[in-house]
Amino acid sequence: MITTDIGIIGAGPTGMFAVFEAGLLKMHCHLIDSLPQAGGQLSEIYPQKPIYDIPGYPTVNAQELVDKLSEQIAPFHPTYSLGERVETLEKLDDGTWLIGTNEGTVINCKVVVIAGGLGCFEPRKPEVDRLAEFEGKGVMYAVRNPEAFRGRNIVIAGGGDSALDWTIFLANIANKVTLVHRGDTFRGVPDAAEKVAELAKTGAIDLMLKSRVVALDGTGHLETVTLVGHDGKEQQLQADSFIPLFGLSPKLGPIADWGLDIEMSAITVNTRDYSTNVEGIYAIGDINTYPGKLKLILCGFHEAALMAQSAFKHVYPDQRLTFKYTTVYGITELA
Amino acid sequence: MITTDIGIIGAGPTGMFAVFEAGLLKMHCHLIDSLPQAGGQLSEIYPQKPIYDIPGYPTVNAQELVDKLSEQIAPFHPTYSLGERVETLEKLDDGTWLIGTNEGTVINCKVVVIAGGLGCFEPRKPEVDRLAEFEGKGVMYAVRNPEAFRGRNIVIAGGGDSALDWTIFLANIANKVTLVHRGDTFRGVPDAAEKVAELAKTGAIDLMLKSRVVALDGTGHLETVTLVGHDGKEQQLQADSFIPLFGLSPKLGPIADWGLDIEMSAITVNTRDYSTNVEGIYAIGDINTYPGKLKLILCGFHEAALMAQSAFKHVYPDQRLTFKYTTVYGITELA
Repeated sequence: MITTDIGIIGAGPTGMFAVFEAGLLKMHCHLIDSLPQAGGQLSEIYPQKPIYDIPGYPTVNAQELVDKLSEQIAPFHPTYSLGERVETLEKLDDGTWLIGTNEGTVINCKVVVIAGGLGCFEPRKPEVDRLAEFEGKGVMYAVRNPEAFRGRNIVIAGGGDSALDWTIFLANIANKVTLVHRGDTFRGVPDAAEKVAELAKTGAIDLMLKSRVVALDGTGHLETVTLVGHDGKEQQLQADSFIPLFGLSPKLGPIADWGLDIEMSAITVNTRDYSTNVEGIYAIGDINTYPGKLKLILCGFHEAALMAQSAFKHVYPDQRLTFKYTTVYGITELA
Repeated sequence: MITTDIGIIGAGPTGMFAVFEAGLLKMHCHLIDSLPQAGGQLSEIYPQKPIYDIPGYPTVNAQELVDKLSEQIAPFHPTYSLGERVETLEKLDDGTWLIGTNEGTVINCKVVVIAGGLGCFEPRKPEVDRLAEFEGKGVMYAVRNPEAFRGRNIVIAGGGDSALDWTIFLANIANKVTLVHRGDTFRGVPDAAEKVAELAKTGAIDLMLKSRVVALDGTGHLETVTLVGHDGKEQQLQADSFIPLFGLSPKLGPIADWGLDIEMSAITVNTRDYSTNVEGIYAIGDINTYPGKLKLILCGFHEAALMAQSAFKHVYPDQRLTFKYTTVYGITELA
């Protein structure tokens, strides 16, 4: 059994920076992530992509930011269970928690911090014949690397911001983009809807309104998408990729059973300290929600700082917290 | 008259980063600061000091961080009135604001953002004979560069965290530190109070309880400090520096007259968007307060991001806001 002060579920940038803020207050952390390396989406999905909105970095590659965060938290010696999924959470009589993973690892901690990003949710999947069969073979629920679509024929389904934004973005990259939407108006922002209408008018994309994708076909890899149009007639399109973008829903599994308040696929928290409705469990980063919430890495950093101040009272119930500036006092390595 | 979308009072790191977040939403900013350069305390007080708690920077010199922020906001072409103090604020019938400075500059803007840091407050000054005369000649109300005290004799007055922390910190640097406190118990954290008692016991510092400084003397520069002890007797100490640390109070002047809710020397804000009680005026960074508030630069960055989303509705009342990730869309330079 691993014993630590704070068990952090999710080793993305927010979870990593939480180690720093906890370390300043002499709290040890153990991070658990289902991915095989720390860094979350940054390392897994777009390591070479530049990020422009990290304060103080006019531009930084995603992996470079992760490497810097690793270096920043090194003095606090975080420990990791990587490539493991959290499956169980149990509160003991002494008020501490037991986190269990699918590999049988058990972590005993005084505070649980959920920093699971979007990884705790899964895409909403439409009812389309043979959909599951082509997952990873042309069907995907998120655009991870836009360049992979260069010169390809792609079909996007959905009527919200993601569908509109990616249609506009990929119109310049793909050979052909077809946007299929069940309605005839869009839920997305007016600007984006107008832009899509304009692209359709000039022939830059194909727009199929009052239509829906019903079946997929291909040998090994996706080759054709069948849709039913507004006139009820079936039509087949050549397609290398089918991207349904219908939003995210909470992933079935442990977190749904922990009694946490969930709203719009996110855990509701108190902005005083980013605590959840369950005493001793905090949620920071993209997985939480509160009035004004923005899913930005820089917001996760702020949330981690306030969380640590509050978590301190669970780890050191008898001590008064001393707030010190690193500019004055520097960093003291944890043993 | 300068016309802009957002008038930002204070060009420290938080005010600077607000330009970036506003720029992403196509809002122009003008920054006003009484200091002659942007960067706030970082550039003015400790440019060469390392900062350790900027996320993604294991360490960064204060001025280097300011330079990076300058580079990051350059695409949004902020304009500046530096070396000017804000003196007046007036709301026009059309809902916009007029900010006036002591140099006669007038800025017309749709939104006012106060990012004044600690600069909108001034130190509480004790009643000590000839105090004002020695300001800048041995008397100071903040420790800006600890190294300047190496080998010197200093007298610190106060009983709170600042007085305790700086006594401990400077004990290793100065030739002699004398801490003078009117009471016999401390308001600061127990740890720090114990440490000070221990330093006094070993002779590393001189601790004068139930005592107060009553007069200063010297030719040109401070040379002696006179204090009255618990027995009512006067005593003279040789001193190169006298540092009274009795906290901050809101600076008399414009901000006090704007009808803003002030609590404990800070402007109270709503954490949804860091708006004040006055519609169209926001407060971000060290100058604001809310439950859980930490005076950290990284928190100011978060506050700037949420402020910008809310300010958008004042600048573009007829447009719906489109939230876009820089990782996907990059940065579009403002004209």
